[in-house]
Amino acid sequence: MTATPARITAVDTFDIRFPTSRARDGSDAMNPDPDYSAAYVVLRTDAADGIEGHGFTFTIGRGNDVQVAAIGALRPHLLGRSVDALCADPGSLNRDLIGDSQLRWLGPEKGVMHMAIGAVVNAVWDLAAKRAGQPLWRLLAHADPEWLVSQVDFRYIADALAPEDAVRLLCEGRAGLAEREAVLLERGYPGYTTSPGWLGYSDEKLIRLAEQAVADGFTQIKLKVGADLDDDVRRMRAARAAVGDRIRIAIDANQRWNVGEAVEWTKALAEFDPYWIEEPTSPDDILGHATIRRAVAPVKVATGEHVHNRIVFKQLLQAGAIDVLQIDAARVGGVNENLAILLLAARFGVPVCPHAGGVGLCELVQHLSMFDYLALTGTTENRVIEFVDHLHEHFTTPVVIRDGHYAAPLAPGFSATMRAESIDEFRYPDGAFWTADLADQEEAA
Amino acid sequence: MTATPARITAVDTFDIRFPTSRARDGSDAMNPDPDYSAAYVVLRTDAADGIEGHGFTFTIGRGNDVQVAAIGALRPHLLGRSVDALCADPGSLNRDLIGDSQLRWLGPEKGVMHMAIGAVVNAVWDLAAKRAGQPLWRLLAHADPEWLVSQVDFRYIADALAPEDAVRLLCEGRAGLAEREAVLLERGYPGYTTSPGWLGYSDEKLIRLAEQAVADGFTQIKLKVGADLDDDVRRMRAARAAVGDRIRIAIDANQRWNVGEAVEWTKALAEFDPYWIEEPTSPDDILGHATIRRAVAPVKVATGEHVHNRIVFKQLLQAGAIDVLQIDAARVGGVNENLAILLLAARFGVPVCPHAGGVGLCELVQHLSMFDYLALTGTTENRVIEFVDHLHEHFTTPVVIRDGHYAAPLAPGFSATMRAESIDEFRYPDGAFWTADLADQEEAA
Repeated sequence: MTATPARITAVDTFDIRFPTSRARDGSDAMNPDPDYSAAYVVLRTDAADGIEGHGFTFTIGRGNDVQVAAIGALRPHLLGRSVDALCADPGSLNRDLIGDSQLRWLGPEKGVMHMAIGAVVNAVWDLAAKRAGQPLWRLLAHADPEWLVSQVDFRYIADALAPEDAVRLLCEGRAGLAEREAVLLERGYPGYTTSPGWLGYSDEKLIRLAEQAVADGFTQIKLKVGADLDDDVRRMRAARAAVGDRIRIAIDANQRWNVGEAVEWTKALAEFDPYWIEEPTSPDDILGHATIRRAVAPVKVATGEHVHNRIVFKQLLQAGAIDVLQIDAARVGGVNENLAILLLAARFGVPVCPHAGGVGLCELVQHLSMFDYLALTGTTENRVIEFVDHLHEHFTTPVVIRDGHYAAPLAPGFSATMRAESIDEFRYPDGAFWTADLADQEEAA
Repeated sequence: MTATPARITAVDTFDIRFPTSRARDGSDAMNPDPDYSAAYVVLRTDAADGIEGHGFTFTIGRGNDVQVAAIGALRPHLLGRSVDALCADPGSLNRDLIGDSQLRWLGPEKGVMHMAIGAVVNAVWDLAAKRAGQPLWRLLAHADPEWLVSQVDFRYIADALAPEDAVRLLCEGRAGLAEREAVLLERGYPGYTTSPGWLGYSDEKLIRLAEQAVADGFTQIKLKVGADLDDDVRRMRAARAAVGDRIRIAIDANQRWNVGEAVEWTKALAEFDPYWIEEPTSPDDILGHATIRRAVAPVKVATGEHVHNRIVFKQLLQAGAIDVLQIDAARVGGVNENLAILLLAARFGVPVCPHAGGVGLCELVQHLSMFDYLALTGTTENRVIEFVDHLHEHFTTPVVIRDGHYAAPLAPGFSATMRAESIDEFRYPDGAFWTADLADQEEAA
């Protein structure tokens, strides 16, 4: 008797929104009132193990429904697919989704449709890691280099990174893996915190949270800048006074400036020794970042959370436009494309310091940095993962921060699973929170 | 008695799909089976004149529903807005839409959300031109330069084009406007045709259509390439033999290649004297295009139909990456962003040869090239608008081609209005065509 091979039987989507704008959590010069949201997807199978794959796109409120619709448009590529085949080769799905020529027209490889691909691809990796009984970082770190390289789409990056370069980097990167894994399990991966620096916070709250960050073991904090220079000078001075000279302070303009403004503004804050200036201008402006970098050194230039694919990252590296590359787990086409980006960064010797925060981005991206440390670059020097202390309680295996470090997650999967109670409460517009909120608003009106 | 000012009262959206894949019309190396589609929007007002504004995003089938949802997400920005204020300053809407920070997260300024903005902004220009009783090209060409510049968003392009540069270009560009307008009305604007060159056509059909194109007065045709080099050599040889040495033959790879492949393949076709190689690689690869351009000269490099915003165009120009800039009327954020791109092209002295075809793209983009000729660059030398002879019959004022030239449209508006009968027939999935098609499929099954 032969068992029927397990198939993907459902691709369930959820529009989940948290009312974060009410406390101005997450406020910056471009995003004054984000409602942190997730276009969430659950892959279900008919396997007896009942294991599901979870993934999501992070958004900041309006348009989350459009993002959910985009994930839904991928459903025909998933339903009926063999679970074993999918988990053995998530790259096959990645190629099919990127290669759907009709859907490709809606990007190509950018925006809503590409983020939808990322959500679904990440859900497959979550499923694969859960079925393997491994946290994703460990599955990736111990994977065969040739197989990992088979997961990467080299189209449009082959002029900067050939498959044989990638194999070599991964083979060399494995030396010392066991020792580093012991260090990682003992110590964790260094983090830095943005919690003190939201633009909507008072100076008192900024100072209190900055002091708290140092007490908590962080060696780097980040401040949002870019709305008003006088305010930024005052806040930067206060933050520097609060944390002292040995703590790094990164600053983040969230794309607020033109090239010329970025240079002037950054220089005006240079006396407070900012470690990096993040997103000084449009994420699409490769040449602009190169100009800014030349002008503001030794302040470093960082970007990436809104860089939409490996092709733009390739050019940022080729043009010498960035000192720090900031991957995001849920903006590009998922783990497969982030493997390409990590390999490119390693090839060019540029450290990766992931963007995180939002909803669940810390949970996801820690796996990628830990893989990078264990089996690719072999170091955490000048590498930190962003940490923001919001909304972790909605995940079944939230990140654990100890002494300014991300503890390596031990639960199988990609740490992407949201608690069922949270989904029920914050589903928009029909979850319990939003239903009650709407009733309140109607009563007040 | 004061009349109530007219407001926008409805933003109606339609998912319209044409079954073009069945005849392999529009087939190329990346898009073997497009179903040309439009995510269509109609702005209605309570003005007594009953005038509507029409706009759309062109897609090639699957995902058109996602695009429609994205247009719908913009509805709150439009409903209730003063029609007079909107038509006097479409840029105010453009700024509001681009500046919606929550929606911006879904790009920024790229992909589904940005194309939705383009559809809506273009619909406002259609409304404004209809109310002014002018075809859009004429409204733009006769507009005050300062006002036109007020319609441009200089964010992220100010390092290449300052507002004062733009005003100067437009003031200088007006000299001789009346004479050129007479020429335009008499002769039209030069076009070229892609109809012979679809990859799915037989050699016989290619030769027949190429000969027909010359007989019809076109001085340039275009061939799709990139799937198989031997086929391309054979087809290019046949096309060159059919049209002779004096007709330009452009070739178009639709992003099929890596940088190295693009160089090799183009050189392999050089003996047939291709005029330009279009979309040799990813539209995101600015540095790649610059490399290819240096390597394949004197063959020109053209791109733009998938370039997602003014910031990428700026860099293509700054990097010396293109000889020919191909705007698309419905990919970027509408007329306002295309004004920025036309100004950038003029500033760098690079000719604009628009992408067209699809559904209604010829109808739209002719207005922008005619404006460029009349009031900005003052020339049509080395400038041609793509023409593809599909689906024009679905528009109330389809393009008119005479002796290889686009006749200047005289009807007020942006030529964007689709016939009501066409909308009824091809609305997906509930229009008459698709309902019958589904019944046929069920019967066959």
